[in-house]
Amino acid sequence: MGKLYVVPTPVGNLEDITLRALKVLKECDLILAEDTRTSGFLLKHYGIDTHMQSHHKFNEHHSAAHVVERLKTGENIALISDAGTPGISDPGFFCLYGLAYRKI
Amino acid sequence: MGKLYVVPTPVGNLEDITLRALKVLKECDLILAEDTRTSGFLLKHYGIDTHMQSHHKFNEHHSAAHVVERLKTGENIALISDAGTPGISDPGFFCLYGLAYRKI
Repeated sequence: MGKLYVVPTPVGNLEDITLRALKVLKECDLILAEDTRTSGFLLKHYGIDTHMQSHHKFNEHHSAAHVVERLKTGENIALISDAGTPGISDPGFFCLYGLAYRKI
Repeated sequence: MGKLYVVPTPVGNLEDITLRALKVLKECDLILAEDTRTSGFLLKHYGIDTHMQSHHKFNEHHSAAHVVERLKTGENIALISDAGTPGISDPGFFCLYGLAYRKI
């Protein structure tokens, strides 16, 4: 079973990101992003080319099943929102629930 | 007038520190540390040799006056606790109040 990482991203200053967050985003197999365009800006800034997939409130129920299947194959997946920590200190909406409901 | 930076430090994993925190700790003129031995371990890990000064609940009232004087001369000072964000998500005690009371 792979790991699902909930990764905090900056809310304003791009330097407000931890070394561990950058490491996880760089080394994981897939990044679930609330908005791939917004997160693309962050990833490009740090030279991270990990594949992204859209995961937000409008597709999370469909997306979650697919994510769980990938985790079961041993892949490590990072979940990020546009800013902040998904589901914890997230100034936007929560996109963690679709996954949490599936008890991964 | 210099700036007083309240800087979050890791609560467990040393990589849980932001790029901006490292930059501030490296570039400021003085670091106020709850425990200079504990913070010394963190600073050494990241090759930061900024001067530290003890600032904690047992000396904060005395220390604060000195800190304010240094800020008035234009020095930039960082405040850290043993772990977490001083006065916000600090698992230890607060050491921010001695400074806040002086309305800097």
